[in-house]
Amino acid sequence: MDDLNPQVFGYVMDRLLQEGALDVFGIPVQMKKSRPGMLLTILVKPEDAARLTEIIFSETTTLGVRRRDESRQVLARKWITVTTKWGDVRLKIASMNGTVTNYAPEYDDCKRIAAEHQVPLKDVMQEAVQHYLRGIVK
Amino acid sequence: MDDLNPQVFGYVMDRLLQEGALDVFGIPVQMKKSRPGMLLTILVKPEDAARLTEIIFSETTTLGVRRRDESRQVLARKWITVTTKWGDVRLKIASMNGTVTNYAPEYDDCKRIAAEHQVPLKDVMQEAVQHYLRGIVK
Amino acid sequence: MDDLNPQVFGYVMDRLLQEGALDVFGIPVQMKKSRPGMLLTILVKPEDAARLTEIIFSETTTLGVRRRDESRQVLARKWITVTTKWGDVRLKIASMNGTVTNYAPEYDDCKRIAAEHQVPLKDVMQEAVQHYLRGIVK
Amino acid sequence: MDDLNPQVFGYVMDRLLQEGALDVFGIPVQMKKSRPGMLLTILVKPEDAARLTEIIFSETTTLGVRRRDESRQVLARKWITVTTKWGDVRLKIASMNGTVTNYAPEYDDCKRIAAEHQVPLKDVMQEAVQHYLRGIVK
Amino acid sequence: MDDLNPQVFGYVMDRLLQEGALDVFGIPVQMKKSRPGMLLTILVKPEDAARLTEIIFSETTTLGVRRRDESRQVLARKWITVTTKWGDVRLKIASMNGTVTNYAPEYDDCKRIAAEHQVPLKDVMQEAVQHYLRGIVK
Amino acid sequence: MDDLNPQVFGYVMDRLLQEGALDVFGIPVQMKKSRPGMLLTILVKPEDAARLTEIIFSETTTLGVRRRDESRQVLARKWITVTTKWGDVRLKIASMNGTVTNYAPEYDDCKRIAAEHQVPLKDVMQEAVQHYLRGIVK
Repeated sequence: MDDLNPQVFGYVMDRLLQEGALDVFGIPVQMKKSRPGMLLTILVKPEDAARLTEIIFSETTTLGVRRRDESRQVLARKWITVTTKWGDVRLKIASMNGTVTNYAPEYDDCKRIAAEHQVPLKDVMQEAVQHYLRGIVK
Repeated sequence: MDDLNPQVFGYVMDRLLQEGALDVFGIPVQMKKSRPGMLLTILVKPEDAARLTEIIFSETTTLGVRRRDESRQVLARKWITVTTKWGDVRLKIASMNGTVTNYAPEYDDCKRIAAEHQVPLKDVMQEAVQHYLRGIVK
Repeated sequence: MDDLNPQVFGYVMDRLLQEGALDVFGIPVQMKKSRPGMLLTILVKPEDAARLTEIIFSETTTLGVRRRDESRQVLARKWITVTTKWGDVRLKIASMNGTVTNYAPEYDDCKRIAAEHQVPLKDVMQEAVQHYLRGIVK
Repeated sequence: MDDLNPQVFGYVMDRLLQEGALDVFGIPVQMKKSRPGMLLTILVKPEDAARLTEIIFSETTTLGVRRRDESRQVLARKWITVTTKWGDVRLKIASMNGTVTNYAPEYDDCKRIAAEHQVPLKDVMQEAVQHYLRGIVK
Repeated sequence: MDDLNPQVFGYVMDRLLQEGALDVFGIPVQMKKSRPGMLLTILVKPEDAARLTEIIFSETTTLGVRRRDESRQVLARKWITVTTKWGDVRLKIASMNGTVTNYAPEYDDCKRIAAEHQVPLKDVMQEAVQHYLRGIVK
Repeated sequence: MDDLNPQVFGYVMDRLLQEGALDVFGIPVQMKKSRPGMLLTILVKPEDAARLTEIIFSETTTLGVRRRDESRQVLARKWITVTTKWGDVRLKIASMNGTVTNYAPEYDDCKRIAAEHQVPLKDVMQEAVQHYLRGIVK
């Protein structure tokens, strides 16, 4: 889109996520006539495609929406909770073939704790990871 | 592409549009060896794919062009003309299921008027939109 | 910065704004070793520089913060409120040398109304602008 | 700016160049609330600063323009013309301390020839460079 | 991905190329909550897809990898070597339907020569191109 | 710059760092005529400015280099080494006013270990951080 107010772009991004999009992101693109356009991409489950496409048409200035089908391989995921000195933080543990490949502290938990305890967000996130790893490596 | 002169990129973008591409855009991408590359994407009707691919090969430095088929849902569109105090401006009216979702003043009309009357482009565009909306809401 | 978790970047951006930064933005930059870095820039009043710099040091991974002084020319601004069919919306009216150069509907008012009345944000924004312009051009 | 229609951005860029800006470029930036903003930067001679700042205020949605003074070191430049098999092309030759550091074919000449003779732009540019280098290295 | 350390991104890009990816690039994207994310895209031969996907899962923070099949049209390519005053440089010559569309000096050869002979890289590249073109046009 | 081959850009970035630039980064910018340009920015100590500016002129296509003076506030930094199960890793510890604000594992150490032991880079980095934090929190 080369004629959409960026404020609307941020709004639409949030709305699509609330309405069930699996993921939403924007890519700054170079368009004709030196226009800095935005390419809006959303990942949706097939059953939601029609409904979310309608939202894109009503909320944005676009006249066309492209669709393609892709397959997606996702890791097994589970949630665990660790108790840090500042409070509980959930971590999302992802594994592939039984091996843990990633452990990510839940952003909202960390953000809440960072504000409450006046500590840097990155420290809260690292603290949560520490507790998780200690739980594994005794 | 990680070895194309940006001046050529701008040129190719215009040429592909003249030659029938439905849309053309460039995305700045991060490539190996800290190279700031450009990903050129064009939307074409299937019958134009071969011809436009040849233009990409002859005009740019790329050695390969990828192709994928996508379906596109487009809104119904019609043109109307409003008469503003500075002159006529066409608007493209898009609708979905009978409801108007977007009304966009034609850029070239607005640009011409802005230059002629020495008024900011955004004011010309807003004026055209005003006339359109007044025409609806008496 | 070439080693900051993007989640922390979003958090820091918000925190700096809450703590008094006049503006905060991030620019994706190409760094050595094919790293997609982020350049964080904040505009601050001189009296806030030291305090906000400390926040950048404690919340991010940066080891250095650059500072430069710039002069800023700002437009005169005033708030007005229009009453649309969906409710009140404030607009920020900017003027230069007595002439209005910009009129922007307040995002939060429009967002609230869009959700309440289930209408597209861009329509609420356009409605507010309409009311403003009608108020001028009888 | 986080609320400017990208079509206006392209227009303003061109207008500022016509009005005397030495250079104009836009940088896509990440702003608050997931808005894809644009940072407009122009290089101007000090005597043009006030006039061009007014154009930015009247044409865009910005409420503030920052200014800073920078020193600029520029290379000595001269124009030469080569006669290629397709016609004349001017080249801008830049030198530092008497040594040529860059030779760039004039874009508009190359573009015109490319269209006339139906040859790729990059070939016209390379042909012009060839003639220039042959002129040096007998 | 909105939570990957950019240093890891650069590392993964290199590793995937070493492990057989045909091409790897990153696109800076705007994600929710003002996060500057990165979209990692790799082109792989179908037989390598599973193996390279596992590398992406183990090295990055992503929880899902999307896959789509695309067809690719590539130009015929051949290598030639020219002998410049500074040493040998290979060029990759690409042709379409028998016509040469591109000639690109091999980066590593040029880089080595530039360092050895203390000459600008762009001059080495241009010299190699010169020799190639002279070999054609007697 | 709107006419520089991206391969040269990556090369120049590396060369400037080798030649003493404190930092080098590139920003993709939107230029006139739909050109995807690159803005090259380097941070240098004043005594290196002239020499590095000459390198920019000789290696790139730019005809002008702008300079501005900025003040920089840097954190106190020290190096420590931790011994992980895979080998030694150095960490750069940054502090502000006596408080540690950041601890970053040395990339090259982690990269070497990741290759040697066939483990994901992010795991090596996390392991090094773990050892550092354990050293503090008994």
